[in-house]
Amino acid sequence: MKIKGQHFRTIWLHETDPVIQIIDQRFLPHQFIINDLHTVNDVFMAIRDMQVRGAGLMGATAGFGMWLAAREAADKESFEDFLSAAAGLLKSARPTAVNPEWAVNRQLLAIAKGNTIDEKIKIAKNTAIMIADEDAEYCRRLGNHGITIIEEIAKRKKGEPVNILTHCNAGWLAFVDYGSATAPIYEAFERGIKVHVWVDETRPRNQGAGLTAWELLNHGVPHTVITDNTGGHLMQHQMVDLVITGADRVTRSGDAANKIGTYLKALAAQDNNIPFYVALPSSTFDWQLLDGVKEIPIEERSDAEVKYVYGLCDGEIKKVLITPQESPVANYGFDVTPARLIKGLITERGICPANEKDILKLFPEQMKAGYIKRD
Amino acid sequence: MKIKGQHFRTIWLHETDPVIQIIDQRFLPHQFIINDLHTVNDVFMAIRDMQVRGAGLMGATAGFGMWLAAREAADKESFEDFLSAAAGLLKSARPTAVNPEWAVNRQLLAIAKGNTIDEKIKIAKNTAIMIADEDAEYCRRLGNHGITIIEEIAKRKKGEPVNILTHCNAGWLAFVDYGSATAPIYEAFERGIKVHVWVDETRPRNQGAGLTAWELLNHGVPHTVITDNTGGHLMQHQMVDLVITGADRVTRSGDAANKIGTYLKALAAQDNNIPFYVALPSSTFDWQLLDGVKEIPIEERSDAEVKYVYGLCDGEIKKVLITPQESPVANYGFDVTPARLIKGLITERGICPANEKDILKLFPEQMKAGYIKRD
Repeated sequence: MKIKGQHFRTIWLHETDPVIQIIDQRFLPHQFIINDLHTVNDVFMAIRDMQVRGAGLMGATAGFGMWLAAREAADKESFEDFLSAAAGLLKSARPTAVNPEWAVNRQLLAIAKGNTIDEKIKIAKNTAIMIADEDAEYCRRLGNHGITIIEEIAKRKKGEPVNILTHCNAGWLAFVDYGSATAPIYEAFERGIKVHVWVDETRPRNQGAGLTAWELLNHGVPHTVITDNTGGHLMQHQMVDLVITGADRVTRSGDAANKIGTYLKALAAQDNNIPFYVALPSSTFDWQLLDGVKEIPIEERSDAEVKYVYGLCDGEIKKVLITPQESPVANYGFDVTPARLIKGLITERGICPANEKDILKLFPEQMKAGYIKRD
Repeated sequence: MKIKGQHFRTIWLHETDPVIQIIDQRFLPHQFIINDLHTVNDVFMAIRDMQVRGAGLMGATAGFGMWLAAREAADKESFEDFLSAAAGLLKSARPTAVNPEWAVNRQLLAIAKGNTIDEKIKIAKNTAIMIADEDAEYCRRLGNHGITIIEEIAKRKKGEPVNILTHCNAGWLAFVDYGSATAPIYEAFERGIKVHVWVDETRPRNQGAGLTAWELLNHGVPHTVITDNTGGHLMQHQMVDLVITGADRVTRSGDAANKIGTYLKALAAQDNNIPFYVALPSSTFDWQLLDGVKEIPIEERSDAEVKYVYGLCDGEIKKVLITPQESPVANYGFDVTPARLIKGLITERGICPANEKDILKLFPEQMKAGYIKRD
């Protein structure tokens, strides 16, 4: 998407050199910094230190990391040993994230097919580009399906802006381009449909206030930042037409784990008859699970994320303490929105109601795989 | 309540001098500072600058302000003119707050009954003390009624701690003592019932993280600070037994306006079969209103409250910017929880279901007053 009129992806190949370039998201929304990644170790640190984050982007980054690893491996005593160690390193960067592991394994399988080292390096490069392009393409398709929902509301509102609420960042910054929850919004914006986005700030890490607001602002999409407490009031007063969020994991029955607080917005949407959609590339489905609330483990994160808030102060990024130093803090990263509160799932193959039967109609190849009923 | 073992109220008379002392809440939870108020102008600034806040405490502070005003007026050309100007000043300090106005009017009526200036000053002092004592006494009674709810849950849980979630600060810092939502909790704690409080941080001003956590910590009540996004997840996992919040305005039908975000917690409580109570001294009822969502005006506050977060940084209180500087922000102060989501109202006269008939059973003197149906 665009930053001050110029098109960017979140990750790309340097024009001339064997270097990967990324937007260092740790400094957003205050500073726009592009980092060069020269080695697999640079890539490891970029994932570990959250210079890049978001499922799609982490996968693409790990994919490019394997290309850099293959280049480095060419000079080593054992190409295979170095590549294998690099794969382990990249997988360990964010242990709970699934996408880096998936991308690394895909690379290992692809690279194994090369006959010479030069061929292997070439395959690694092409595979990395393919992983990134596919991620962008899936999001683009998802947007093309999702826009029908916005179009329908726009028609009903006769040109009045469609007000869409979103939580956390499921924007292009979390993927290679377009985003998941934002893809239908960007598509509507491109087609000249009037949209306005309510951006939940999304405590504790403020990915809404810091990332979603930044990307909408730079692309030119009208938006307003609100505290996470505000959505219910807006919905009571007909100021929200539609909710779209991303997801971190969705069961085959349609229960969606997403950033903590998503469930509260889904409840408010239901109470006020507002359609609540979850947008996801199908890689986010966990075909093994049926009961999200019971079966999806919820990560507990550091209390420092709640106690301290990061932001810009006198031109520098600083943190301020907002609780008594001695008060205990709990920090659950995600919650699960039961399928009964979700009007539909927006995927790269189309939109479907959030239940096992309809999901499997869209993904029939998963019919027999996956969940085994436990009696 | 207690601060490091010593009993405090939020406002009190100096032991020997004609001076009012308050806890300056702007510096909590990081610094404990007591301010001396010598003049009605000091009192005006204490209310305006939010050194004191909370309905009950603002009323008590304005009451004491009128005593200081009467003392000052004694030296002026016209006692009445000075007192009247002082009354106007105090009422203007926080225009949307009802309690300062109520306390000032009560003082004006009382003072008018004095025959000499000395008598008027004496009446003003006694009335100020009475207003403060009544506020504390109403909260104490409210706690004595509310504790029955906690006791019942404690019995069912056979000694396991009762987990109570609260939003914002409806604690003793918002009143003269005990608080509203916290009064049953402090009472349970005194009686040795095991309680644990989930404290919503309450963006944008973080009164939960800053004030509620601080007062519970200092009194010794077990608690855990959470982001406003977290309560739904806790309720889904049986980690909350009871929700108690305060209120800013409650209709005669039981709809409750309270700090923004309260409605979302009420929805989650309903979805998980958890009792949701609102605690209020009866002065919080607005007998004129029947439909809270439609009829209670919701204050929009400065966008700076959302964009900047205040906290401790290198030993000083600083603010950090968390959004892009150019992103628009909306800041609604309150939302309305419909009576249908409220299990009961805890008042100084007892607990009642949140509907007009049952509320009026407890306050029969309001039966004929108030609301006029508009056809």
